[in-house]
Amino acid sequence: MSKYVVAVVGATGLVGGEMIKILEQRKFPVKQLVPLATGKKEKRVVRFKGASITVKETTDASFNGVDLALFAGGGSASQEFGWEAVRRGAVVVDNSSCFRMRADVPLIVPEVNIKHLKRHQGLIANPNCSTIQMCVALKPIYLKLGIKRVVVSSYQSVSGTGKAAMEELTTHTKAVLAGHKTKPAVYPKEIAFNVLPQIDMFTSNGYTKEEMKMINETRKIFSDPNMKISATCVRVPVYVGHAESVNVETLRPLSVDSLRKLMEKTPGLIVVDDPDPVEGDEFRRTYPLSIDTTGKDDVFIGRLRKDLSVENGFDMWVVADNLRKGAALNAVQIAEFIFT
Amino acid sequence: MSKYVVAVVGATGLVGGEMIKILEQRKFPVKQLVPLATGKKEKRVVRFKGASITVKETTDASFNGVDLALFAGGGSASQEFGWEAVRRGAVVVDNSSCFRMRADVPLIVPEVNIKHLKRHQGLIANPNCSTIQMCVALKPIYLKLGIKRVVVSSYQSVSGTGKAAMEELTTHTKAVLAGHKTKPAVYPKEIAFNVLPQIDMFTSNGYTKEEMKMINETRKIFSDPNMKISATCVRVPVYVGHAESVNVETLRPLSVDSLRKLMEKTPGLIVVDDPDPVEGDEFRRTYPLSIDTTGKDDVFIGRLRKDLSVENGFDMWVVADNLRKGAALNAVQIAEFIFT
Repeated sequence: MSKYVVAVVGATGLVGGEMIKILEQRKFPVKQLVPLATGKKEKRVVRFKGASITVKETTDASFNGVDLALFAGGGSASQEFGWEAVRRGAVVVDNSSCFRMRADVPLIVPEVNIKHLKRHQGLIANPNCSTIQMCVALKPIYLKLGIKRVVVSSYQSVSGTGKAAMEELTTHTKAVLAGHKTKPAVYPKEIAFNVLPQIDMFTSNGYTKEEMKMINETRKIFSDPNMKISATCVRVPVYVGHAESVNVETLRPLSVDSLRKLMEKTPGLIVVDDPDPVEGDEFRRTYPLSIDTTGKDDVFIGRLRKDLSVENGFDMWVVADNLRKGAALNAVQIAEFIFT
Repeated sequence: MSKYVVAVVGATGLVGGEMIKILEQRKFPVKQLVPLATGKKEKRVVRFKGASITVKETTDASFNGVDLALFAGGGSASQEFGWEAVRRGAVVVDNSSCFRMRADVPLIVPEVNIKHLKRHQGLIANPNCSTIQMCVALKPIYLKLGIKRVVVSSYQSVSGTGKAAMEELTTHTKAVLAGHKTKPAVYPKEIAFNVLPQIDMFTSNGYTKEEMKMINETRKIFSDPNMKISATCVRVPVYVGHAESVNVETLRPLSVDSLRKLMEKTPGLIVVDDPDPVEGDEFRRTYPLSIDTTGKDDVFIGRLRKDLSVENGFDMWVVADNLRKGAALNAVQIAEFIFT
């Protein structure tokens, strides 16, 4: 089997670190790992297969001889080095939002639209975390029943913002518990013991960029530019794991039991939704939780039920590890389709 | 002006305590306050208008001579003493869910359906916290545009469960921060740094009781038994203040600006939704937050925008203090319509 030189841009960040872990866990055929950071931070090392590898600063020349470059260093690093890496011979899987909507860049969720990969021109985009898990959950519904409309409200963890946000949640939670005042720094408002109905900047239509990503990226992934979606994205004081309350109106009917069975058979989905709890233990029915998905690879579905407000529709609760399936794992899965 | 003997059942609980505070703050004409508790707890006192009043155990005889009885002692206390208090001459405003759906019991949100009060037979029901704030927000839309369908996902604080839940959030948060294991007691699953897609028990259709309350109570309040609503109720690690992501499909069109103006004129609603933020400060647009509503009386609206997925529809973010407008204040407001 061939082995490859793999660069990870943003190797010291949350997603980059997770990428390196996943390359090792999934035995990606790595000949040499090239961990890269952006900006002049203190010298760091990453661990990979028992070895310590020094993280270098990203330059154009970093990509000479690189077969695969996983980008998780933020939008400006992708802008600056993404296509340069392609020019120097690498295939790039980019976790930033820079190129996702470009016609010449496939936007891939392997379980949903791996067929789009064949159109790639060296750079493939990894979708937004909240988009990926929703698309995996919507796929079997879309194929079997058709989708008329989706209304989604999210419960997104702070690790989606990065390490500094996780630290802000910890330090601010401690401060609030101690009765001290806090001053938001990473977030525009206080995140401790609060929920923030804003992720990313606002756009002129009143939606945030995160909400528009869920709408536009989902349409591109399903090759359905008119798919009707409304999204409200909310940050919650959870460290890892995004949850979504997804309401789907379908074109055709199906029983909840049949849909549950269909989802149980769907690769990448795990149904955690016991419809017949133990007698006398009704209160403790099962459903997926953000804290339980940490480190897991699948998208978890629960609270599946017939929507009472439309003829054909369902409500469901969709949870995934935003750093893995929502980012690093999805990127490595894309790379596996190309290289293995 | 006449003055009245006012009993508060559940006076040592979160909502009962808030009721006593609000009776004083709003200068309700109280001749005598009768604080009552259920169960044999240690002797307690409550403070009212500078005096300490001993809390007594609730018995049938407690209601002799009582003009107004505010019930916030849970379902079993309302079942046991609610109609008995009426028989002994009191008007009862009941915060439990026991009698809300009975045809002979009006279910009142003063800003929405105060006209239903005239049918009362001694006992008036206070709606569920998450229902009240949504109804106040929906009222101007319902009147002006008609409502085709509502899809709501909630972000409900732990104070809705009571004091023990607030303590569980504190102790479990500290335990998680210290790296210790926790064992859920009040909640079926861990609430610290997590979100729980379950409030109250499950019903046979897969919705929880809390979700069915939002559906059925809203229909009763609007006298619209076929109103189309789907709800997903989620507990979040916030102490006080419920937030709701409300998607409304309307029968007739209106611009967002006109709707915002309409809501700004609506009593009981405060719009916190600057559509034109300061140049260069776009990231810090205003919207209501759970932690900012604590102690406030109004229902706060933000994130108002045209829904992109339907011809006529809006998304909005609705926040209120669940102990005040969601419970104690709404009950006292109902009493004010009867007694003042």
